Amino acid sequence: MSSSVAPNAVAAVSEARQWDRLMQMARLGAIPGDGVNRACLTDLDHQARRLLIGWGRAIGLAPSVDALGNLFLRHEGTEPGLAPVLTGSHMDSQPNGGRFDGIWGVIAALEAVQAIREAGLRTRRPIEVVAWTNEEGGRFAPGCMGSMAYAGFRPADTWNDVTDGEGLRFGDELRRLLDAESDIPRRGLGVVEGQAPHAYIEAHIEQGPRLEAGGHDIGVVEGIQGSRWFLIEITGKSDHAGTTPLALRKDPVQDMLRAIAALNALTHDPADVLRFTVGRIEVSPNSSNSVAGAARFTVDLRHPDAAVLTAKGDAIAATVRAALATCTATVTERFHALPSRFAPTIPDAVERAAKAQGLSSLRMTSGAFHDAQFLGPVCPTGMIFVPCRDGVSHHPSEYSTPAQLAAGARVLAQAVAELAGG
Amino acid sequence: MSSSVAPNAVAAVSEARQWDRLMQMARLGAIPGDGVNRACLTDLDHQARRLLIGWGRAIGLAPSVDALGNLFLRHEGTEPGLAPVLTGSHMDSQPNGGRFDGIWGVIAALEAVQAIREAGLRTRRPIEVVAWTNEEGGRFAPGCMGSMAYAGFRPADTWNDVTDGEGLRFGDELRRLLDAESDIPRRGLGVVEGQAPHAYIEAHIEQGPRLEAGGHDIGVVEGIQGSRWFLIEITGKSDHAGTTPLALRKDPVQDMLRAIAALNALTHDPADVLRFTVGRIEVSPNSSNSVAGAARFTVDLRHPDAAVLTAKGDAIAATVRAALATCTATVTERFHALPSRFAPTIPDAVERAAKAQGLSSLRMTSGAFHDAQFLGPVCPTGMIFVPCRDGVSHHPSEYSTPAQLAAGARVLAQAVAELAGG
Repeated sequence: MSSSVAPNAVAAVSEARQWDRLMQMARLGAIPGDGVNRACLTDLDHQARRLLIGWGRAIGLAPSVDALGNLFLRHEGTEPGLAPVLTGSHMDSQPNGGRFDGIWGVIAALEAVQAIREAGLRTRRPIEVVAWTNEEGGRFAPGCMGSMAYAGFRPADTWNDVTDGEGLRFGDELRRLLDAESDIPRRGLGVVEGQAPHAYIEAHIEQGPRLEAGGHDIGVVEGIQGSRWFLIEITGKSDHAGTTPLALRKDPVQDMLRAIAALNALTHDPADVLRFTVGRIEVSPNSSNSVAGAARFTVDLRHPDAAVLTAKGDAIAATVRAALATCTATVTERFHALPSRFAPTIPDAVERAAKAQGLSSLRMTSGAFHDAQFLGPVCPTGMIFVPCRDGVSHHPSEYSTPAQLAAGARVLAQAVAELAGG
Repeated sequence: MSSSVAPNAVAAVSEARQWDRLMQMARLGAIPGDGVNRACLTDLDHQARRLLIGWGRAIGLAPSVDALGNLFLRHEGTEPGLAPVLTGSHMDSQPNGGRFDGIWGVIAALEAVQAIREAGLRTRRPIEVVAWTNEEGGRFAPGCMGSMAYAGFRPADTWNDVTDGEGLRFGDELRRLLDAESDIPRRGLGVVEGQAPHAYIEAHIEQGPRLEAGGHDIGVVEGIQGSRWFLIEITGKSDHAGTTPLALRKDPVQDMLRAIAALNALTHDPADVLRFTVGRIEVSPNSSNSVAGAARFTVDLRHPDAAVLTAKGDAIAATVRAALATCTATVTERFHALPSRFAPTIPDAVERAAKAQGLSSLRMTSGAFHDAQFLGPVCPTGMIFVPCRDGVSHHPSEYSTPAQLAAGARVLAQAVAELAGG
């Protein structure tokens, strides 16, 4: 295969245009410290989607939306019946998130397609820019609902009754979005109601420190570590903090401490590959002078090895129960994504494109999960990482330079052009 | 001193009337499971006060309100210039509270005064029924604001800027109450602007298991254990849960665990007299797939011995800081009430009254704090406890029988009559 595919398309990628679009998007949900809080299906999300649709239409792309709210912008191929090359990411952010996680993959996909078109390159296959619904899972858990439903992992109505912190239902908020976008053509839901893509390729900031530390321009992602999310709910008995002897208490806060300590021990990994996080805690009634009646916390467990992830995750419920001194607990698994290894097709194409452009690259596994995880079983899939400062993500200080992001978009443009038969 | 003071007043105490008033009050803020949620200075609190004022006026008592919203109903003495006997408690509840904590002490005081009047007993001293503002501290922390200001422990405007969970200021809500009660005569603030009472006596459910377990009718309270409240705020760094190796994290949830474990060790008491409670926890951003950036928790520490309370409380900040592995912490003391030992006058009077009525009594220290704590240094002070089922309080299932509460009101009537010179 040629190592100089689509040189004009690569040259047509505009660092300034891509950066300008990112900064326009960052204003929708801007929070102090250069951060972004743009939860999925909020009015801010609606506005961001309209902005994207407008940019796509301005260069001749055709928008469409599926039943999960996944948004597509289609560049037509010379053979429209062929399966499209799909590229994109997500537009929702963490509550205290940054300007690049997710949204850059969508903007980079648009930039790559625009560059291909501006270079006058006719592709045999259609190319579709995609923005997946609710990747983060910050407002409605779990994340990756859009890509999971697209890939047929879960029925479209699976999460209708999931509520956000204010009690709003996912199903109602999704309906509100689809009503607001009733002027956009509706399409069938992914591989369930249509054609599997020819390939999927997603650009994303690394969200970790390895590329920056090693001085690499491009991460060639070969797979994604698996994730399992659990909710642990501990029930005790609320009592007066001043009168109830400790021996007579059923204090769920103290049992939560015991449970987390036991989980720390269960998941201890001297190699520091396993990721164990308790990021969310709620106590009830949460009064300083009452022994709590209930406490709940989440567990986020990740590992690249399916055997380790299965063994540790399956041991969580028993570990929690064995640790409790006085209370009872229920353990619910809310999300389970096995580690995924991408077939070599796309990683090889990414590596080739980087090499052709004189960029250094590193083959790596993603520590974060991504929509690509669910596309992997459906079609040849891959990801392009670029470095981010100090490896920070999910925080307002998240940052990649315009040049780093432009390099990523150029590699994406070349890989997409090659896959689409430019 | 006679052991048969005021037999007619004791006989005039009505079990049914007292119970009926309690059940009427319980409808103001009723929550499922027979509970009450009636926070101070809310509209429900206004309604409860109007109900009380109406009952007082109907039997000839004169209402007045001071600058903190403390509400008084005065029975005049034959020598009006003498310092009054003060008796009462508070009308606010915990958010998930019961029907008896606080409000019974106010209703029992009204019942005792009504019985004294119906028995035709003329007392030399005035008797004042009091309802203190914000004893619980559930809406505006700390508790006991009304009695603290009355006793001169803090200036009246100390808490004006304290806000509730919705951002409403205590000072504004207090102003709203005083405006709503502008038809009630205003009086000077307690011992600061007026006369110290001759005595203070407060009836209350035990909020602990000892009277019920021992088969006692009446608790003769000799003192109240001291309380210290702390807020511990731990600052770390929010990171992506999937990509950040544990060795590179500054996880405030994990450091909170270490801090609480160290505080458990600091406060461990084989005799189970010390009360150490972490009842409130908040984590930020509280997202299941983000390492937290900050965590805060409260400490409620109580002990009847001032030396122990001082030593353990003073060691909290250093203990927390020594326990942290990666984060920083600030420790703020929000409330400090030294243990109080009542002079023997009132406890002896309570014990005498119980004995004269053939009731069994137990001398004990209160595990909960009460407004009586702040009256202790101002005048001879005491409390009357009655048993409550399973020792439960601060919970909808809180319960004492009509007969138990009537016995408490009869002891109160006799003790008050004796103190007022019946």
